[in-house]
Amino acid sequence: MAILSALATEVIIPVAGVIGIAFAVVQWVLVSKVKLSPAAAASGGSKNGYGDSLIEEEEGLNDHNVVVKCAEIQNAISEGATSFLFTEYQYVGIFMCIFAVVIFLFLGSVEGFSTKSQPCTYSKDKYCKPALFTALFSTVSFLLGAITSLVSGFLGMKIATYANARTTLEARKGVGKAFIVAFRSGAVMGFLLASSGLVVLYITINVFKLYYGDDWEGLFESITGYGLGGSSMALFGRVGGGIYTKAADVGADLVGKVERNIPEDDPRNPAVIADNVGDNVGDIAGMGSDLFGSYAESSCAALVVASISSFGINHDFTGMCYPLLVSSVGIIVCLITTLFATDFFEVKAVKEIEPALKKQLIISTALMTVGIAIISWLALPAKFTIFNFGAQKEVTNWGLFFCVSIGLWAGLIIGFVTEYYTSNAYSPVQDVADSCRTGAATNVIFGLALGYKSVIIPIFAIAVSIYVSFSIAAMYGIAVAALGMLSTIATGLAIDAYGPISDNAGGIAEMAGMSHRIRERTDALDAAGNTTAAIGKGFAIGSAALVSLALFGAFVSRAGVKVVDVLSPKVFIGLIVGAMLPYWFSAMTMKSVGSAALAMVEEVRRQFNTIPGLMEGTAKPDYTTCVKISTDASIREMIPPGALVMLTPLIVGTLFGVETLSGVLAGALVSGVQIAISASNTGGAWDNAKKYIEAGASEHARSLGPKGSDCHKAAVIGDTIGDPLKDTSGPSLNILIKLMAVESLVFAPFFATHGGLLFKYL
Amino acid sequence: MAILSALATEVIIPVAGVIGIAFAVVQWVLVSKVKLSPAAAASGGSKNGYGDSLIEEEEGLNDHNVVVKCAEIQNAISEGATSFLFTEYQYVGIFMCIFAVVIFLFLGSVEGFSTKSQPCTYSKDKYCKPALFTALFSTVSFLLGAITSLVSGFLGMKIATYANARTTLEARKGVGKAFIVAFRSGAVMGFLLASSGLVVLYITINVFKLYYGDDWEGLFESITGYGLGGSSMALFGRVGGGIYTKAADVGADLVGKVERNIPEDDPRNPAVIADNVGDNVGDIAGMGSDLFGSYAESSCAALVVASISSFGINHDFTGMCYPLLVSSVGIIVCLITTLFATDFFEVKAVKEIEPALKKQLIISTALMTVGIAIISWLALPAKFTIFNFGAQKEVTNWGLFFCVSIGLWAGLIIGFVTEYYTSNAYSPVQDVADSCRTGAATNVIFGLALGYKSVIIPIFAIAVSIYVSFSIAAMYGIAVAALGMLSTIATGLAIDAYGPISDNAGGIAEMAGMSHRIRERTDALDAAGNTTAAIGKGFAIGSAALVSLALFGAFVSRAGVKVVDVLSPKVFIGLIVGAMLPYWFSAMTMKSVGSAALAMVEEVRRQFNTIPGLMEGTAKPDYTTCVKISTDASIREMIPPGALVMLTPLIVGTLFGVETLSGVLAGALVSGVQIAISASNTGGAWDNAKKYIEAGASEHARSLGPKGSDCHKAAVIGDTIGDPLKDTSGPSLNILIKLMAVESLVFAPFFATHGGLLFKYL
Repeated sequence: MAILSALATEVIIPVAGVIGIAFAVVQWVLVSKVKLSPAAAASGGSKNGYGDSLIEEEEGLNDHNVVVKCAEIQNAISEGATSFLFTEYQYVGIFMCIFAVVIFLFLGSVEGFSTKSQPCTYSKDKYCKPALFTALFSTVSFLLGAITSLVSGFLGMKIATYANARTTLEARKGVGKAFIVAFRSGAVMGFLLASSGLVVLYITINVFKLYYGDDWEGLFESITGYGLGGSSMALFGRVGGGIYTKAADVGADLVGKVERNIPEDDPRNPAVIADNVGDNVGDIAGMGSDLFGSYAESSCAALVVASISSFGINHDFTGMCYPLLVSSVGIIVCLITTLFATDFFEVKAVKEIEPALKKQLIISTALMTVGIAIISWLALPAKFTIFNFGAQKEVTNWGLFFCVSIGLWAGLIIGFVTEYYTSNAYSPVQDVADSCRTGAATNVIFGLALGYKSVIIPIFAIAVSIYVSFSIAAMYGIAVAALGMLSTIATGLAIDAYGPISDNAGGIAEMAGMSHRIRERTDALDAAGNTTAAIGKGFAIGSAALVSLALFGAFVSRAGVKVVDVLSPKVFIGLIVGAMLPYWFSAMTMKSVGSAALAMVEEVRRQFNTIPGLMEGTAKPDYTTCVKISTDASIREMIPPGALVMLTPLIVGTLFGVETLSGVLAGALVSGVQIAISASNTGGAWDNAKKYIEAGASEHARSLGPKGSDCHKAAVIGDTIGDPLKDTSGPSLNILIKLMAVESLVFAPFFATHGGLLFKYL
Repeated sequence: MAILSALATEVIIPVAGVIGIAFAVVQWVLVSKVKLSPAAAASGGSKNGYGDSLIEEEEGLNDHNVVVKCAEIQNAISEGATSFLFTEYQYVGIFMCIFAVVIFLFLGSVEGFSTKSQPCTYSKDKYCKPALFTALFSTVSFLLGAITSLVSGFLGMKIATYANARTTLEARKGVGKAFIVAFRSGAVMGFLLASSGLVVLYITINVFKLYYGDDWEGLFESITGYGLGGSSMALFGRVGGGIYTKAADVGADLVGKVERNIPEDDPRNPAVIADNVGDNVGDIAGMGSDLFGSYAESSCAALVVASISSFGINHDFTGMCYPLLVSSVGIIVCLITTLFATDFFEVKAVKEIEPALKKQLIISTALMTVGIAIISWLALPAKFTIFNFGAQKEVTNWGLFFCVSIGLWAGLIIGFVTEYYTSNAYSPVQDVADSCRTGAATNVIFGLALGYKSVIIPIFAIAVSIYVSFSIAAMYGIAVAALGMLSTIATGLAIDAYGPISDNAGGIAEMAGMSHRIRERTDALDAAGNTTAAIGKGFAIGSAALVSLALFGAFVSRAGVKVVDVLSPKVFIGLIVGAMLPYWFSAMTMKSVGSAALAMVEEVRRQFNTIPGLMEGTAKPDYTTCVKISTDASIREMIPPGALVMLTPLIVGTLFGVETLSGVLAGALVSGVQIAISASNTGGAWDNAKKYIEAGASEHARSLGPKGSDCHKAAVIGDTIGDPLKDTSGPSLNILIKLMAVESLVFAPFFATHGGLLFKYL
């Protein structure tokens, strides 16, 4: 048996969760020390509570109005984001209720809504709880997952809109101060999300156990609903938020930067508030829900496989909770890692920002490897067996340590490769920038080629992780490898959320009419943020691939499929159609962004043409109409792609059966992961190629610039094309592949019993 | 037994082949009646041999110099194309010899170069020819396939460069006359290629039979080399030709159209000859080799499966030759179909061009369905068995008729969908054109979304064909479905080759300084050609998908794999890496086009800047340097993608074994087909969106134009980005998936015996 007792496990997990939440609160308090009212700033000492001198003081224009303006703009952004999320959640809430009923009806019908206990699937001599109750508990855990996901996204948005103006104000003191505020705020979101995900899951398991008792198979079957809930909310968050943010961004850029030659985030641009709101609802709330979904799903996948392995059969609670223990260790490790960025070291210059963020990745990965080793030694028996498609496979605790670690390190490799392809410190982005010399067309050709190329190493990393972890511990190995990749999720989210916060901070500086030097600092923060955003997306995609495969394995086990043979036509047509789905989905989302952007362009043009004094800055634009266009478009347009993803498994499973559905899942997985990686890296590279030209930090960059040159214009076109790729289509594809897999898993008993109608009656 | 005797089969196939070749010669003679020398034109009567009046006569500028100029330009294009192909063939020849040795050594080593007969795989009591001789014959058939492919491509190029100026001259008489010349020339290529492919294959089988006698298994195993030879040459043709043509095209457009504001194909542009040469080496020679490869491979796949089915076991020669008989019928059907375009009806106005070409597709498909029914009734026994992964499956002749027909009709559906998405007569392209209002970025976003969307129906059509034909006749069903799709290849090629010929004709009109009205006519021909080119690519991709699957099935059978289980990690890593390969390949080819285009841009700019009087038309540009840049770039850049495709199966098979290789093939197939379709349709749509704005045929189109407007500039950028997508990366991907499959098939005995070294020793 394991060294750690069941009681210790019962204590460690909630304690780690509470520590994480407490740490998030502390960070929030630290961020809140930056005062947004000029009075408070003055009362806190002559120098805004700190001993630093402000840029304004240096430049002799200490104007308290700037602080007031920042507070105003922040309020506008925060209100816009809150109101959008509330509107979105209304629609999503309706969907949630309907889908909850669908889950209950489909799963309840498996045994004809009977309330009698049934023989267990994996040990026929024992009796398990009736399917009807598992249907009920699945529905409850679905709702819990959905609500946790929504709350996580919402809180993330709240802290981000709380921090953006504060980051701007701190930028007056220096780039280091601004960096710390932005990073701390990211950390609030990261820790809140990782901890609440863990705690809610833990409580749910314990509450469900009151009913299920010794029937762990049923218990963890019903827990999978938690993953489905988390991921389905993430889908709407990513797609809706993605369309919102990019419609505004593309619309604002096309008229503002290209036609009117005014800078980005200029307050005269009517779409500027919508653009900044978009960063918060898309990149923050959407991304938070997405990674929460991955985390919930990989935990569920691991748990459901473990429940039919020796842990579940022998009722070894500590071993069973190994996935949760890994996450608990992850929270502590990330906590220590965060201190390296905020307390142990200090960022003093612009060029230290990216290395500081990169160090976060390296430190968390190194520490986590030790953490995994310790917890694997403590929580696992030296030897145990894992369910492997009908057979049991012998695994050692060190073998499992290796599985988790390989996922963790594969994540780091994906992160570094992403950085290499999207940071303007390296040749790929510089080549793309250079290709702007011959215009937008070559820029696009080179950018697309870069994205395609950036797929190679991540795919090899994922393939090696899959092979090794599967060889060691079958599908359980893959599930824990995914968990390993996500174990440092708090740090990953922190550096990921840091990006949009800095982006907003820059926007606020511009809108508040602050000094050019402040804008330069926030731009530097933002450029690093683009790269970390791409890294975050890399993590999200890599983990999504592993998670989906683990879920796929769990689905296949649960549906009783022994072999998914590509040579069977039922499977092959699933495979080729599944590989097509990411294209269909991308077509929908890109077209949506395009159409919404066109509407936005018309409105912005209309305002510039009809509001007298707008260009001169004497009249105010009508921000609300633009916010409304983005809101309406995203709510309307998120439904068809959402329906595609949510209905495909149901239709395929019901009409064509589990074999074809297996093909669809495998096809969507192997095809979607490529498009997702290439789309997000292409977009990131274009964005940073543009920033490279704008910053003009090298001889080469200056030869392409300055802002407004033909090269720069070509770069702006690339950036605009990249927007929907990297922030709408690309990241939504993770969710497509994960969600279809987890949905199939939840509905597996139904498909296995009633599925394949078309082939049955043909 | 079948109604048709073996003797009748022995007669019908070569006769059909000879008829096809004779028809091609007749068409050539008809084309040659258009005289290119002014003297001959004059001596043939005052009106160029016909009773029509020329545009020049109408406009009163009957200038014989125009004819001389056309002849000159045609010579320059023809010389450039010939010299490029010779250079390319030198390199490809070296590769061919090396690879022939590899084939011989690898296959010879299967039984340790033993010259002793071995027990047959499928009936252990009989003795089959030694592996060493099969290695030798495979090598010979590889060389034959390669040479036939090269010759086909070369002849196609010759007739195309022979016809282009003649099309221009005929355009002086009317759009109908020009259409007929262009179409007849396309037909020469189509019939030559289909017939020579059939005849060479037929002769090879008969010669090999002299050695193999009753050992049909060995005979048709060695015949698969023919497919490999055809396809590997097609790879270099497509990639090399694709890079050549698009480097020149992009380079010419970027400086000429965008920077200097001179029209397309203006003789002042130094890259103009290279651009026109490119159309012939890329779109004609490359595409010819590609479709020849598909044809050879699907025949080989069908034959190799048939050889271990009842046809082969019972030595039923007529049944065995069913694939060749289908192709023979196809030649006759296409011959009749061609007459509908050239003799039965006449194209009189611009708007009749596209319907005339579309009618070709419909007529050939309808007639072919009847043809297939007849030949299935005559050549097949009422019932027979087909090998199905170790078992034999009972099939009826009408079942097989259904398999071939479903492939044929799926091809038509793919063709129509492609037309819908790429012709500017329908809303998708018009929407893309409309999105140019807001600039190049939205144009690109809408274009990409269009390409993604255009994948949906073709994939469903392919999936249905696969499911139905597999259910009826296992992998043999899929092979004959592919053959069905390719049975009207002569017509398909004719309408496909028609495009580049018209494109060249327009270029020659521009360069020869002919009347604006002639250019308008050739432009109309060309716009229809863009759509037919996209349709041709749709056919090529659809058939490639079916062919690859059939080859994959044959490979799996021959390698003795019973199940390709996605749940096995060996297979899954193959699947995900395989799905990545098309991206890697596209990254290489797009980057190559980009870099070569940059070099071309530099050179064109240099000439405009340094040659005095070039812009004014008083000095001649240096065409040869541009031709050299394209040639060098394409030769240099075709090697890495070529190596990727050719080496992947060898490395994966040798190191990881047949299971992983199966995964790679399936992954590359399901992922590659999507990118190929979307890339070629996106490119086609952008090209026609530009042409839509230029032509200004509707109120809407005029509101976007004219040439040189901001909308038009945005459309030109889209067109330029689409060039490498539709003419380099996209179409090369067909070959990637086919070639890897046929190579695996040829090397299957080696991989089965010696493969999987890494897993063996780890």
